[in-house]
Amino acid sequence: MKRLSAALAFSSLLAVPFSAQAQFAKVEDAVKYRQSALSVMGTHFGRIGAVVKGEKPYDKATVERDAAIVETLSKLPFAAFPPGSEAANSKAKAEIWKEQDKFKAAGEKMQSEVAKLSAAAKSGNIDTIKTAFGAVGQSCKACHDDFRKK
Amino acid sequence: MKRLSAALAFSSLLAVPFSAQAQFAKVEDAVKYRQSALSVMGTHFGRIGAVVKGEKPYDKATVERDAAIVETLSKLPFAAFPPGSEAANSKAKAEIWKEQDKFKAAGEKMQSEVAKLSAAAKSGNIDTIKTAFGAVGQSCKACHDDFRKK
Repeated sequence: MKRLSAALAFSSLLAVPFSAQAQFAKVEDAVKYRQSALSVMGTHFGRIGAVVKGEKPYDKATVERDAAIVETLSKLPFAAFPPGSEAANSKAKAEIWKEQDKFKAAGEKMQSEVAKLSAAAKSGNIDTIKTAFGAVGQSCKACHDDFRKK
Repeated sequence: MKRLSAALAFSSLLAVPFSAQAQFAKVEDAVKYRQSALSVMGTHFGRIGAVVKGEKPYDKATVERDAAIVETLSKLPFAAFPPGSEAANSKAKAEIWKEQDKFKAAGEKMQSEVAKLSAAAKSGNIDTIKTAFGAVGQSCKACHDDFRKK
């Protein structure tokens, strides 16, 4: 019985979103990692935004590169929300851990829209890029509204 | 003459390392970006290190993924050292801007070693990975010794 409860206690550690377990030694490491990944992602997404808004000229190779970086980075932050990683310097809401399925779905929605943006960037069609950019932006906003403190 | 000096003043802005100009609205944005990119890169490099040191079991797909992330991120920070981006919360030494060629070479050395690590990870040969990992580590250290405050 003792061994069984130990095993169960251990296995419950596995039920964390996006297999985040055991990747970070300290909560601060996880917070720094996810904030860093989201920040770099935001910078490159913002550069595409400047093109979409007409503030910068459209250059296919540049937008493609920015979109590829956004795509790579979009896969990283969700592995860095281990249980208990609410922190003073984090805007993560408790809902992340209370509504894990919803949080996971929100992350996957963003990743799927980002993949479409990356494909649009390769197509070189600025209208397709604008549409895909808008959909990514909505997925960011939806997740921030529900899971990020103001 | 006035127009010429304006053009020259403008063109002098172009002589910055790794074409960093006009990418960041504020110095703080550049500092945050380069620190974030280096931090995420360091996390994934550290995960390969844990395998190299035998602290974690070797899994080809995981090391390959970590190396690919390191490779993508290795291309980012050097565009974020615009002139004058020394800052209170930055460890960047003034030497970065005094010795631009040396700094650029150090960055390119790291990027080239990282590309070798990525190739080694794809090969699946742990000895090749260990060698490549060591070379990347040396390139990080060399650049930090010369261009990063303690």
